[in-house]
Amino acid sequence: MNTMTNRIRGVLAPVVTPFDRQGAIRTKLFVEQCQWLQDRNISLAVFGTNSEANSLSADEKLGLLDSLVEAGIDMSRVMPGTGACDLPTAVRLSRKAVEAGCAGVLTLPPFFYKSVSDDGLFNFFARLIEQVADSRLKIYLYHIPPVAQVGFSLALIERLLKAYPGSIAGMKDSSGDWNGTQAILKEFSAAGFDVFAGNEIFLLDTMRNGGAGCISATANTNADAIHHLYQRWREPGAEALQQHLNEIRGIFQAYPMIPALKSALHHWSGEDDWKQVRAPLVELTSQQNRELIERLKLFGFSIPALNGERRENRDW
Amino acid sequence: MNTMTNRIRGVLAPVVTPFDRQGAIRTKLFVEQCQWLQDRNISLAVFGTNSEANSLSADEKLGLLDSLVEAGIDMSRVMPGTGACDLPTAVRLSRKAVEAGCAGVLTLPPFFYKSVSDDGLFNFFARLIEQVADSRLKIYLYHIPPVAQVGFSLALIERLLKAYPGSIAGMKDSSGDWNGTQAILKEFSAAGFDVFAGNEIFLLDTMRNGGAGCISATANTNADAIHHLYQRWREPGAEALQQHLNEIRGIFQAYPMIPALKSALHHWSGEDDWKQVRAPLVELTSQQNRELIERLKLFGFSIPALNGERRENRDW
Repeated sequence: MNTMTNRIRGVLAPVVTPFDRQGAIRTKLFVEQCQWLQDRNISLAVFGTNSEANSLSADEKLGLLDSLVEAGIDMSRVMPGTGACDLPTAVRLSRKAVEAGCAGVLTLPPFFYKSVSDDGLFNFFARLIEQVADSRLKIYLYHIPPVAQVGFSLALIERLLKAYPGSIAGMKDSSGDWNGTQAILKEFSAAGFDVFAGNEIFLLDTMRNGGAGCISATANTNADAIHHLYQRWREPGAEALQQHLNEIRGIFQAYPMIPALKSALHHWSGEDDWKQVRAPLVELTSQQNRELIERLKLFGFSIPALNGERRENRDW
Repeated sequence: MNTMTNRIRGVLAPVVTPFDRQGAIRTKLFVEQCQWLQDRNISLAVFGTNSEANSLSADEKLGLLDSLVEAGIDMSRVMPGTGACDLPTAVRLSRKAVEAGCAGVLTLPPFFYKSVSDDGLFNFFARLIEQVADSRLKIYLYHIPPVAQVGFSLALIERLLKAYPGSIAGMKDSSGDWNGTQAILKEFSAAGFDVFAGNEIFLLDTMRNGGAGCISATANTNADAIHHLYQRWREPGAEALQQHLNEIRGIFQAYPMIPALKSALHHWSGEDDWKQVRAPLVELTSQQNRELIERLKLFGFSIPALNGERRENRDW
């Protein structure tokens, strides 16, 4: 944790959401995955793109937040996705997150209408902040134009930061465009705007340029190694650690990411339901599944203690 | 109404949704707009793109459906939008629409994830139909790739129709691509798949090619003239009527459509709140507003009896 700002930093996972064969959420398995991640120093960006968050209803998300609180999850290390196309739902989810003691909220822009103006996006976030009306609200702007098609310009970030410096806390940049990330880091990180890389491939570069960490799908499976680089990014071996992360990431990225993560969790946990995704996503084919696991094993990859003993060595 | 299939046909408006200055829905004004439209033989595609449906929460939509029922709106002429990125919400809205006696539901594909497979989209609609589990459910596929970015291929339509012939009733085609619409009409209209043009510019062509009508934003304002063409599409003067519709449409289309419709409703009703849109949309500037109204007036356009007497000359 950043002792100067008391804000969340480090590695976060958009926690994958388990479903049963009927498509219902497996709440207990979800909580266990969150515990497994926190035990490995991975903070929880629940309800992210890789969580299939937009395939969950608002009520389901509110219910899962309650389950995390009840299970004793450290909510100061949780940054739920609270974005929605409609403002009332974004307000409802964000307010709940604040009340649950979350570190912040990761908020997509409204993503149905395309080519909307910065004025319109500014208004959305202004109304969100005014309607949540809680000084504890910390918004991390979720910039993922390849999927949402609607993103944040430098001018919009600047305007939001200037108007709401206490509430606009940072960004997850999933643009996949390092030049863009670098420009955001250069413009805003000194002002206390915490930039998280959208995946671990940019973790070292992000830290070297004043960023706060990364929020990465593969942290669901490659937790220890990603955290290891976050801890050692200033050390001489960091480049090699980064290279190793990139190779694991590359294996997952050769397949549709969400079903690939779930296939790996299924394989190493033995829990059949991990394979389930909600429509419109589809599972890997059995051939894809076999190839993925073989490639990961050839690389020496495995997921340790997935359903095993708890450990308590958190460094936050 | 098509006496052979008992299904809805004709002109539908994606009813614009009025808000007050705080962004709350003006329910009574919404119901009055619905009454005004039905009095002019325009059926109600409430919760469409031009209704800012994705800027409304699921709870707001359920509440508005209740208000329409309570106000005595003819629900057999209502086709609410029930699409959502998540299946539980699409099921909840669709079930409610069926229970309220709606003619059908106009359902977007899940639109957050991009480049999804036909298998995934098929699964979404299959689960929707299975979970609503009501033979009265009539789904109109809402094809609007310019906004949703996710659409329906011919192969997907065919597969859905074959698997669920009783539930897949038709489509609103807002692709803006007449060749695509024509291919859909040619392939499926004979099988009882009712195609509605996504705007009135294609109304005459759609009717001549076996379609069912149109669902058009400007029916909110140019109701009588659009219905007039629908009634007379087989008559010799139809081309001239179509040309007139196109010219009115062209004036609105020169501005962002939703705020332009609301500006016109504001002007001819004197109701200030009609100007309000929800973020991320923004109102027309005062200059745009002035220009739009001037151009409409120069063309002899006005909206009659917007807050005036009811009339009861429905031809359904």
